[in-house]
Amino acid sequence: MHDIAVKEDILASLEEAAAHNREHFRDHRLYVANLMSGPGAGKTALLERTIDALAGRYRIGVVEGDVQGSEDAVRIARHGVPVVQINTGGACHLDARLLHRHLGALDLDALDVLLVENVGNLVCPAEFDLGEHDKIMVLSVTEGADKPSKYPVMFHVSRVLLLNKVDLLPHVDFDLARAERDARALNLDLEVFRVSARTGEGLEAWFRWLDARIQRTQAL
Amino acid sequence: MHDIAVKEDILASLEEAAAHNREHFRDHRLYVANLMSGPGAGKTALLERTIDALAGRYRIGVVEGDVQGSEDAVRIARHGVPVVQINTGGACHLDARLLHRHLGALDLDALDVLLVENVGNLVCPAEFDLGEHDKIMVLSVTEGADKPSKYPVMFHVSRVLLLNKVDLLPHVDFDLARAERDARALNLDLEVFRVSARTGEGLEAWFRWLDARIQRTQAL
Repeated sequence: MHDIAVKEDILASLEEAAAHNREHFRDHRLYVANLMSGPGAGKTALLERTIDALAGRYRIGVVEGDVQGSEDAVRIARHGVPVVQINTGGACHLDARLLHRHLGALDLDALDVLLVENVGNLVCPAEFDLGEHDKIMVLSVTEGADKPSKYPVMFHVSRVLLLNKVDLLPHVDFDLARAERDARALNLDLEVFRVSARTGEGLEAWFRWLDARIQRTQAL
Repeated sequence: MHDIAVKEDILASLEEAAAHNREHFRDHRLYVANLMSGPGAGKTALLERTIDALAGRYRIGVVEGDVQGSEDAVRIARHGVPVVQINTGGACHLDARLLHRHLGALDLDALDVLLVENVGNLVCPAEFDLGEHDKIMVLSVTEGADKPSKYPVMFHVSRVLLLNKVDLLPHVDFDLARAERDARALNLDLEVFRVSARTGEGLEAWFRWLDARIQRTQAL
């Protein structure tokens, strides 16, 4: 009982909850990525591709964050990996405490990688540290190249920008060079991959980058 | 008048103030680093060394953050660079709004680099985004190797860890390998430099890293 009281006190602030999650992940040698984007940018399709590519090398688990419903969790479960659905019940983002409460539904010892799909929203999720290793953002080229200036925080905090749906570039006005330059101005370390979850274009480079991050985590 | 009202509204949240600062820095092609550490870790001594090393190549300005007093600003001014003192009047950290209010005292067009020395504190400054390109933390080996587990947020958000006072290693019990491993577990991208501001040991590698960051900013 005493331990539980102490733990709840530790989780009192979201910053502390994130630090607590980070310790969990470290104890389990688990690499954790937090996927964020606006609605319909292709997070779930990219997750499906990524799971299929890495499933032979790593044991993967998924957390699906949605305001309500579980359509994406059903899609993911078809790929043969454990999935936990979190419904935020109105909140526009996951937070570290909410994630912590649901981690118990996964056997972390049986996982190498945890992929978290955040609520579809370009604003709120960026401001909440879940304790993940990397924030990965997805921007579809159909959304327009003005997004870095309109949603700077998301670009600033992300480690990777997946520019998705590049197969549609011939059909939309999207200035790739401008989007990448504006995004890098917000974040000197941003890795940018031009990909299409539909055709598979560009995904190999993203898989290699992710693989290297997982290996770096396991080597610690 | 209308413009000012709009601007104050923009700066209403600290997140927005940080984004606003970031735009300023970009407009002026200014690279900005935020130095953080506990009291007495050697931030000012490292700043002095860094200014002397880079002053031939770049035009440098400094912001000194302290609860009160201006001893450090006086030290820095001796190196022939413009310095602005911010007294937080009790607050244990700088924030983006406070920094913004004092930027007017510097001619940003006449600068390539702005080095911000935060209030000496291992906790609060880590949680406040100033709009800087990089957070740089300093840990003195005299402080003990347990600091990553005790102050995880600071290690998590920093781009660089300067392990200072390595000339004192023979005289203290400091497990370098443990400190570095624990720090990297909190931050896969952390760059670690073992340095001594007193003897100059290890500083060249830090200067080279910083030079590359400044060049990357100017190329954007």
